[in-house]
Amino acid sequence: MPEMRRDPLTRRWTIIATERSKRPHDLKKADDVGIAIPDFVPNCPFCPGNEAMTPPEVMAYRREDSASNGTGWWVRVVPNKFPALAPEGELTPEAAGVCDRMNAVGAHEVIIETPRHDENPANMPANQFRESIWAYRDRCLQLMTNPRHKSLIVFRNHGKPAGASLEHPHTQLAALPIIVPETASLVDAFAEHQRLRGRCALCDLIEQEQRDNERIILENERYLAYAPFASQSPYETCIAPKACHADFMMESQESLDEFAQILQELCRRYDHAFGDPPYNYMIMTAPVNRSREIAFHWRLVMMPRLTVAAGFEMGTGVWINVASPESAAQALREAVRPLQTEKV
Amino acid sequence: MPEMRRDPLTRRWTIIATERSKRPHDLKKADDVGIAIPDFVPNCPFCPGNEAMTPPEVMAYRREDSASNGTGWWVRVVPNKFPALAPEGELTPEAAGVCDRMNAVGAHEVIIETPRHDENPANMPANQFRESIWAYRDRCLQLMTNPRHKSLIVFRNHGKPAGASLEHPHTQLAALPIIVPETASLVDAFAEHQRLRGRCALCDLIEQEQRDNERIILENERYLAYAPFASQSPYETCIAPKACHADFMMESQESLDEFAQILQELCRRYDHAFGDPPYNYMIMTAPVNRSREIAFHWRLVMMPRLTVAAGFEMGTGVWINVASPESAAQALREAVRPLQTEKV
Repeated sequence: MPEMRRDPLTRRWTIIATERSKRPHDLKKADDVGIAIPDFVPNCPFCPGNEAMTPPEVMAYRREDSASNGTGWWVRVVPNKFPALAPEGELTPEAAGVCDRMNAVGAHEVIIETPRHDENPANMPANQFRESIWAYRDRCLQLMTNPRHKSLIVFRNHGKPAGASLEHPHTQLAALPIIVPETASLVDAFAEHQRLRGRCALCDLIEQEQRDNERIILENERYLAYAPFASQSPYETCIAPKACHADFMMESQESLDEFAQILQELCRRYDHAFGDPPYNYMIMTAPVNRSREIAFHWRLVMMPRLTVAAGFEMGTGVWINVASPESAAQALREAVRPLQTEKV
Repeated sequence: MPEMRRDPLTRRWTIIATERSKRPHDLKKADDVGIAIPDFVPNCPFCPGNEAMTPPEVMAYRREDSASNGTGWWVRVVPNKFPALAPEGELTPEAAGVCDRMNAVGAHEVIIETPRHDENPANMPANQFRESIWAYRDRCLQLMTNPRHKSLIVFRNHGKPAGASLEHPHTQLAALPIIVPETASLVDAFAEHQRLRGRCALCDLIEQEQRDNERIILENERYLAYAPFASQSPYETCIAPKACHADFMMESQESLDEFAQILQELCRRYDHAFGDPPYNYMIMTAPVNRSREIAFHWRLVMMPRLTVAAGFEMGTGVWINVASPESAAQALREAVRPLQTEKV
């Protein structure tokens, strides 16, 4: 019997229907397993030497003797060349009959995580990935000073089926002039839980996961990685700080180092289990500068793209998940790649 | 400057960012253009002669002299072999700590729309497609008599990137034991609009589309096909009855014939413009047996799968659309396939 499960944060129902995984081809394997990726691609705009192919950098971690927009960097942040949100201009919100419109004022940046074209979080040296995470934080801290930015989202599209248009490892950062629906819905969920139970919903959930001990994948001193009870997609996972912190960018450097460590290890587990699968991860942090007024607890949501959302999901808002979160967690716990083969 | 637009029904914001369509490969063409599909496939469970490969039929339009679960049908409805919702069993909703669970009790059926493997709404004879639409209606009327069914959704997954696992033309029907989030959100939107403005939100929208006359694609006496002002995906369209009707399955046969005609013509326009693109369509009808109490106006939502939703969309709930609805409507208005080449 398929089971419906509801998540207290997203307040969405998911149908866990493991029988459906017997349909042919229901869990996709990565298409390009075993295809070697070169470490440098001459026409890649994110490879060193091609800095002029991107808009001028807004930040870079680079050698002291190197010049802006030249080589010598190890992490580089540039505006998206095809931005969904533009930094200049007036918002000018207005009615359009019974609809509404405004200019898409905000920011849309790309964090180039390494000079090497062939790296990704699963095979990158730990110090390189740590620096990328610091870059996420540094850019968030900068963008939150703009009073027009109401929401910040850090997201990664890895692999073409996950929406990546460039192969070179990168993460994106967007600042929006509204509190976006996913964040607004989380704000409501945290407020409701706080009002009804007097506690943080995610703190309660973390405690429950630790007690149940069925869906935990990884843990370090400050972070827990688990498969949510009502995961909407197969092998969906979350990484949450155990302490009730609203803002990702307010974490200390020590905390971010631990975050980088657990996120990188999680990526390795996926790589080992599915052979470099396409995935998206999103850092769901509080609305900008609101953590004094509202209840919020940030987390990273990791969505491997192993199935396709279809008419049922679009039409109902209920997801069908063909893998039970308990078995997904077990598989990822066991997908240990020996350290000596870590670097491909 | 990209523009943000808000839809009064979904109450979601979309970013219309047409510059982004200049990214390479941003609008996908169908992968399998020009590959001939056979009219019969020996191991297809939906092809005639293979009726034993599906669960026993729940309804069929068949010749009077033919036997159930044999050949002689022209539309056949069977339970999904891998159902997300099961018809038997108790709901038994219960808390799971701070989460919730219940059995997925409901129905999940497949409407096999034609005996011919190679047909689809774009190339099917008009009378065959009309009969499929009547089958949608007949099954909805049957399933709404079960008091456990709170929501009904009719949806089609066409093509593998749209989640279809079988090629033979079919549509699915699901009955759920909850008012699903997408429907609940529409109920709220209609109620809010009714309370604030004293009118139906979709009636207002239809009037606005007719007045603006920029996003209309097709029209017949009872139905309007248009590209929504805040379309979340490129070439998204809606078909709505001009009269304020809450329930799809309560439409008269004459009305459904007009609906079949406009939907089939819309499918032909996509086929002509994009070469049999993958798409989903969903019939968004009122919660079961609630039309006396609530404001609602049903419509069909058509989502061609020309781009991939990625981390931005998942993390924010805001969609980035690289095609303006006005230019999409114009392209579909002009994508006229001459009648003599209608049948492939």
